[in-house]
Amino acid sequence: MEYEEPLFFRVMEYAANSDADVIDMVSGNPDWGSPPALAAGLHEYADTGGRQFQYPPSEGLRELREEIAARRQVPVEQVVVTNGAGEANYLAMGRALERGAGDEVVMTDPVYPYYPGKTDMLGGEQVFVETAEDGSLDPADVRAAASEDTACIVATTPNNPTGAVYGEETMRELVAVAEDHDAILVSDEVYDHFDYSGRFTSALEFDSEHRVVVNAFSKSLAITGFRVGYCIAPESHVEPMKSRHMLTNVATSRPAQAAVLHALRETDPDYYEQTRETLRERVDTFTSALDDAGAEYTEPDGAFYVLARFPDFPGTLENTFELIDEAGVAGMPGSGFGSAREEWLRFALVTPRVEEAADRLAAYFADR
Amino acid sequence: MEYEEPLFFRVMEYAANSDADVIDMVSGNPDWGSPPALAAGLHEYADTGGRQFQYPPSEGLRELREEIAARRQVPVEQVVVTNGAGEANYLAMGRALERGAGDEVVMTDPVYPYYPGKTDMLGGEQVFVETAEDGSLDPADVRAAASEDTACIVATTPNNPTGAVYGEETMRELVAVAEDHDAILVSDEVYDHFDYSGRFTSALEFDSEHRVVVNAFSKSLAITGFRVGYCIAPESHVEPMKSRHMLTNVATSRPAQAAVLHALRETDPDYYEQTRETLRERVDTFTSALDDAGAEYTEPDGAFYVLARFPDFPGTLENTFELIDEAGVAGMPGSGFGSAREEWLRFALVTPRVEEAADRLAAYFADR
Repeated sequence: MEYEEPLFFRVMEYAANSDADVIDMVSGNPDWGSPPALAAGLHEYADTGGRQFQYPPSEGLRELREEIAARRQVPVEQVVVTNGAGEANYLAMGRALERGAGDEVVMTDPVYPYYPGKTDMLGGEQVFVETAEDGSLDPADVRAAASEDTACIVATTPNNPTGAVYGEETMRELVAVAEDHDAILVSDEVYDHFDYSGRFTSALEFDSEHRVVVNAFSKSLAITGFRVGYCIAPESHVEPMKSRHMLTNVATSRPAQAAVLHALRETDPDYYEQTRETLRERVDTFTSALDDAGAEYTEPDGAFYVLARFPDFPGTLENTFELIDEAGVAGMPGSGFGSAREEWLRFALVTPRVEEAADRLAAYFADR
Repeated sequence: MEYEEPLFFRVMEYAANSDADVIDMVSGNPDWGSPPALAAGLHEYADTGGRQFQYPPSEGLRELREEIAARRQVPVEQVVVTNGAGEANYLAMGRALERGAGDEVVMTDPVYPYYPGKTDMLGGEQVFVETAEDGSLDPADVRAAASEDTACIVATTPNNPTGAVYGEETMRELVAVAEDHDAILVSDEVYDHFDYSGRFTSALEFDSEHRVVVNAFSKSLAITGFRVGYCIAPESHVEPMKSRHMLTNVATSRPAQAAVLHALRETDPDYYEQTRETLRERVDTFTSALDDAGAEYTEPDGAFYVLARFPDFPGTLENTFELIDEAGVAGMPGSGFGSAREEWLRFALVTPRVEEAADRLAAYFADR
């Protein structure tokens, strides 16, 4: 497991450097386009200048925080705007670890690879809890893994890479485990707009001093490059998180904040529904073609990734490069997501060519 | 000294909430306007969408890094684009402290208040070296303060808040002190375009494994809210700094990077020269009026701040609020910049009303 620097950029670069036609399913970079209000908001901002180009409040533009607070039904004081979910997770994990409440960060295996890297960077200890084959997480396993040295529990729902959606009972129990160990549950819900199961439950549902919710507009507005996210935390954690945010980044880039604010205000719910519909269809198309190819795979309840396993072809970086070169399909090695899915490869459904991709994979493995 | 959260935002908020007409000289927020190519670049970017709205390379857009590398005459591999100078300093100080080469960070007093806060956050120990009355720094004092536990030396030139510009011999010797103690000199040169003395010397002039140069476009393009900065470091430090950047922020906001790239390419040197000329005039006007008021002050060689001292009126937060309420002028308390200028107030020359501000101060102190 190579945690210090997640592999995404390395695989993307390898795929981009290929001379052949490669179907890019590496990273969670939406291809379905942002709502038009996003670009309109950026144009509107570009026309301001002067004072509007200077420091926003460190915790985020007031109107953006109010818009988020109203949507999430929390007091505006609990909202901090961050440089994407990446910084939001860093602030929340940093807060959990700095309290003198222990060094351990409990996370799942398979895992989103930034969590172990952030844990190391922040001086914490990694503890892994394996999820079931279908990606579901048994909170009893988390409770068994937790100790008096547990400072933080990080969970992602809907999950990347497994596509699992944790239901209400799981979330309630994760908050309870955090409370019982004076830990903080960091609930990363960046895929909350991509729930096909109807079972998604935000950790916000459970009022507690022991949970911080992380989110971002990277996926829901198809702007991974803008870097606008947020965390919602009880006041006891918000103030130190704001200090860390200020001392790390001063503030979040203002053009991006202004564009997101405009997009939130002007975008119809249809946009999100249509995106979900597109992705539901891609899941069906891709998994049907994998069926035909005789591959094993996970059926995602949320997010937009499929984990697939092919006979005698473990999910190593070497095999990922092999598929780029020989099949013309770029995925992510399962070994990049912990030890539990080393046999698997992850494919992001961020291209309309998912059927062609599955056909290419089938053809490659038929010839092999 | 309140380090954990620098006071800037608090004083700005107090001034903004006043009902009276307050001349805002709190923060280094340029009022002279960005070059037109900046907004044009943002408009151009807003018209792209799709893939252009997704993750840029973590270390920054290739073309922006190339533009910076060409201007600074360094290999492009040494350039990392960051979320402003704030993140660049965080990356450089984090790198210095993580090497096992000691815990101490040597910095000046007066000090830019983010440095001590970052030092605490990164687990380092603060060591202060007092500068002379005129702001000049004697490298022999830095050498005397350094020990085998010194990991980092942070210096700002041109200096905020003193306006001092460190000359070639000072910079050469600071690099030598860092080398002799296995420390890293972090040279924060964010005001490099605002040198009125002709003596500014970048630490880049001295090739060494023991120096990292930090800069940003916040001041030079009048966009403190965009958050685009960079660091230049030898390869042995660039790789771990890139990892920390990725694990903290994933990447720097792309709309802001695209706008800066366009502005750099299309902006004539006249823009920078005119800005300097404007500021030179403001320095003269403001200091002449302070002369008339019988105040003591520093004459800046660079940057755009003036430190002033009034009889029996120490630079506390309370007195800063008093001047906002009673004189209609908002500055920053000297006590916010360490212990050496607690008697002083800092005024940022970011308004055309500098003469009126000085007159108001004179009238207030005449009546007192």
